[in-house]
Amino acid sequence: MDWLDQVKWDAEGLVPVIAQEAATGDVLMFAYMNREALALTAERREAVYWSRSRQRLWHKGEESGHVQKVREIRLDCDGDVILLKVDQLGHEPGIACHTGRHSCFFQRLEAGAWQAVDPVLKDPERIYK
Amino acid sequence: MDWLDQVKWDAEGLVPVIAQEAATGDVLMFAYMNREALALTAERREAVYWSRSRQRLWHKGEESGHVQKVREIRLDCDGDVILLKVDQLGHEPGIACHTGRHSCFFQRLEAGAWQAVDPVLKDPERIYK
Repeated sequence: MDWLDQVKWDAEGLVPVIAQEAATGDVLMFAYMNREALALTAERREAVYWSRSRQRLWHKGEESGHVQKVREIRLDCDGDVILLKVDQLGHEPGIACHTGRHSCFFQRLEAGAWQAVDPVLKDPERIYK
Repeated sequence: MDWLDQVKWDAEGLVPVIAQEAATGDVLMFAYMNREALALTAERREAVYWSRSRQRLWHKGEESGHVQKVREIRLDCDGDVILLKVDQLGHEPGIACHTGRHSCFFQRLEAGAWQAVDPVLKDPERIYK
């Protein structure tokens, strides 16, 4: 049985994906893959997602240069969530977020409000030019 | 504006949630919350999810004793994914997975097959008795 058939794809043919930085353990981002994206990710060892907003394959870093080198691909107990362990390339420290931050999870709940607690490492206008 | 209103709930009124162990950085599990679950999680500082299979609130650890103490609640750049940083209580090392493993992400893709690479720390029959 093909390993891709063992993934429980949702009604839209997608699976949620968590990208975690291998060296630090930081959770960088969350996205989706379809079957082709996951097959390409495994083959190239670089993260390829399915962009739901653009309805097309999205080779992470194709515009920003912030490619994710894939170290490990993991599947959860229910077979319906993927965890990637990656090296976040293109900047030091790595930038995974389109806001120019290390991680997309930069807002922390503090005293009943979301506070941006992590710095912008590079101006997005210089990333996407 | 209420912090709960700033979360972009999906069509079913849910938001995906990643639970990460605060001390190790290990990604433990992935689940969903509705508005009430997130409000309760913030209030109690213990993870409360929405069980899609059982269609009810699920106070993590209610059966297993494997409660998640919440250290941080984070929101991603798009406002549609939550990251919890938790202490996984009830066993040492922590058990987040119903299979008795530390993390739900215990299957790794190796040579075209999913391999269970992390040990069972406690027999599930002894967890859910």
